[in-house]
Amino acid sequence: MMKLGLFVQGGGHHVAAWRHPLTPRGATQSFAHYIDIARIAEAACFDMIFLADTVATFGPDDIDVWKRGHAASRLEPLTLLSALAAITKNIGLVATASSSFNEPYNVARFFASLDKISGGRAGWNLVTSASDAEPFNYGREKHDPPALRYARAEEFADVVTGLWRTWEDDAFVEDKQAGLYFDAAKMHMLNHAGEFYRVRGPLTVRRSPQGHPLVVQAGQSEAGRALAARTAEVVFTVQQNIDDARAFRDDLRARARAFGRDPDSIKIMPGVVPLTAASREDALAEFETLQSLIHPEQGVRVLSEMTGIDLSQYPVDGPMPDAPPHGRQQGRQQVILDMAKREGLTIRQVYQRAVGARGHRLVFGDAQAIADDLQRWFEAGAADGFNIMPPTFPLYLQRFADGVVPLLRARGLFRKSYEGATLRENLGLGFPHHPAAKSIAAK
Amino acid sequence: MMKLGLFVQGGGHHVAAWRHPLTPRGATQSFAHYIDIARIAEAACFDMIFLADTVATFGPDDIDVWKRGHAASRLEPLTLLSALAAITKNIGLVATASSSFNEPYNVARFFASLDKISGGRAGWNLVTSASDAEPFNYGREKHDPPALRYARAEEFADVVTGLWRTWEDDAFVEDKQAGLYFDAAKMHMLNHAGEFYRVRGPLTVRRSPQGHPLVVQAGQSEAGRALAARTAEVVFTVQQNIDDARAFRDDLRARARAFGRDPDSIKIMPGVVPLTAASREDALAEFETLQSLIHPEQGVRVLSEMTGIDLSQYPVDGPMPDAPPHGRQQGRQQVILDMAKREGLTIRQVYQRAVGARGHRLVFGDAQAIADDLQRWFEAGAADGFNIMPPTFPLYLQRFADGVVPLLRARGLFRKSYEGATLRENLGLGFPHHPAAKSIAAK
Repeated sequence: MMKLGLFVQGGGHHVAAWRHPLTPRGATQSFAHYIDIARIAEAACFDMIFLADTVATFGPDDIDVWKRGHAASRLEPLTLLSALAAITKNIGLVATASSSFNEPYNVARFFASLDKISGGRAGWNLVTSASDAEPFNYGREKHDPPALRYARAEEFADVVTGLWRTWEDDAFVEDKQAGLYFDAAKMHMLNHAGEFYRVRGPLTVRRSPQGHPLVVQAGQSEAGRALAARTAEVVFTVQQNIDDARAFRDDLRARARAFGRDPDSIKIMPGVVPLTAASREDALAEFETLQSLIHPEQGVRVLSEMTGIDLSQYPVDGPMPDAPPHGRQQGRQQVILDMAKREGLTIRQVYQRAVGARGHRLVFGDAQAIADDLQRWFEAGAADGFNIMPPTFPLYLQRFADGVVPLLRARGLFRKSYEGATLRENLGLGFPHHPAAKSIAAK
Repeated sequence: MMKLGLFVQGGGHHVAAWRHPLTPRGATQSFAHYIDIARIAEAACFDMIFLADTVATFGPDDIDVWKRGHAASRLEPLTLLSALAAITKNIGLVATASSSFNEPYNVARFFASLDKISGGRAGWNLVTSASDAEPFNYGREKHDPPALRYARAEEFADVVTGLWRTWEDDAFVEDKQAGLYFDAAKMHMLNHAGEFYRVRGPLTVRRSPQGHPLVVQAGQSEAGRALAARTAEVVFTVQQNIDDARAFRDDLRARARAFGRDPDSIKIMPGVVPLTAASREDALAEFETLQSLIHPEQGVRVLSEMTGIDLSQYPVDGPMPDAPPHGRQQGRQQVILDMAKREGLTIRQVYQRAVGARGHRLVFGDAQAIADDLQRWFEAGAADGFNIMPPTFPLYLQRFADGVVPLLRARGLFRKSYEGATLRENLGLGFPHHPAAKSIAAK
């Protein structure tokens, strides 16, 4: 059966989502809005809600772009997911936390606590921070180079997952008569001393009904794939076509096998932006409406950065200037400039294509067309499931839940009710037995 | 009117609380248990729930003591309070976060987000970490010396509260027609560059209905008082008698005035352990039962540390040995040894007195006696309210709520319903107007 995650992002995944008439004002910061989203998702039996995170904000030079978008105000993912844990019962709760500006002991404790509060529904998406603005909030002006970031992330993940193995499942005997709260033989000090971190433990949070939080990753690069194959249980990925997606999935499964893991213990979930409407024509028309809401200041600025040309000098409904490419993104610049020339596009037409979808795969059509597309990818071995990214909330989530999910169910591709109480049970992943308890579990 | 905080601590504040027959098993890690507590507290109109925190855990030499207590497993305060925010409406939610092992940007964001989620009910208790075990989870073996810790904490507080002033209350115009999400003139970059921290901002969380989270502190030392007088709105304190408490409160109010603050803008709340029963005799008997539940291994070990004598060599029901005091806590050692000699106490009797109450003020009696005591302190100007620390949960909280609160209400000392929707409104503290909006607010 197909797995479905819901990638939650305030007003929606389209850059102009907040301007859509049906997107609530204050969506990015309204707890009531997130409650609505979580309830729709849980009623549809989504496996999990996923919240991305950057501590990115923006620099003084970027204000004119950011004031046109809706990412300047958000809620912090761990506090938001914890609050949503209290009003949901089955849906998984996955948040991003970066290895760059956090202490592994803190990250281990936050997610372990969320896992206990939610009864075994938490997941941690490990990322390394990369956006330019982030270091400035942490006393730095630059990130470490990628190789160092990944080396650090790998050790960070070892520390976090090691801390999650502090206690065996039955360590807390709480024998009131004998006055024994825990069995010291079932507590394991981490005593980690590595290249980047020294962390002793113990963690002060017990194991949860799913053992410990799920480990999620979104690495596309070589280093990211290697880390994911070794440690991730769910992998989010950006894939535009079925062949590349299948190759990516095959590659990750092979790498997981090389680490001695069952390839089915790693679920690959490409992102999909479903624009569900009454017909394909309606869907395309609705998308054009959304595209028209991208403010020219935002579109021109982002496109200027992409092409390395200051486009603010030119009329937005005039042709793209024919400038020689330079700067660090030459390949991408050339692709955009070639497309503009070939199709005779205006600046506005170019930024709409480049900016609106944010690089994720758009699927247009009625519910049947969307279900067909997902089925095709799933049955081709290109995906274990999908990370659904509605262009606006709650509108396109509601349409997906009302229209696409019932079709997937009717075709036997998606659950009608939750299989279990924990996120791992619903994903069909095994219980991670404590290493010290393995012999017992095998009996 | 008197303010009441509820200091929540898993099974209860008595060291043997978890062994009490009416304390639920797994209390320290059961979200359902915390929901019960929050609902009782909110029904009684407590101003706030308070969660302490250490990242302390314990070292390999301390396992024999910790396995007898119930502090080895807890939930992380921010995740727990966020979850409780979703199932409560009016009660304040205050958590500790240390300046020692956190980034100020992260702390600012966590509490600002909780403040938004809860509709203006969050509070941050700023502490510096001091327990021996903590640094070992963060790559260190020792804390900074106290003066450095406080200097760092002061700057940390400036950064956090500065980030909370990123946005003016009406910065987010969300003008869908014009495509303007925020008014850049109402966004204020922090650009902090101090001795310990460089943090640029902006924070990605908006102001909440109470402006920003409440600032709480618990400093008793000179440095702690200075910091509290400058920044705190609520101060928790340990006070054993009314005269000392009044002197402490007078001192803090005078210091606040010296910083140009209205002394009524700082609420002093001593901790109280109320042992409410049908009569004073019953209360004392119940306390003796609790005392008898302190495991000798725990009692003897803690008393050994207090006195500097290895008491494990002596029979627990025999007399205290007569050893010369040595080590670093000479004064306290002498007080304990003198008391033991004077009253002819056994080792067990001594550790029960020294360990059980954990240094906080115990009040015994029926509901009327407890209410009388609190009234006396309040009317003597020794307290603006109290931080209530039930010896066990939920038993002694329920008795306080059912017995003491109605008496305080009948005497006009405590609210019958919440005055407002935010924590600051209920505490009678003014709205912290944004500095850039002061002139408007004054109109």
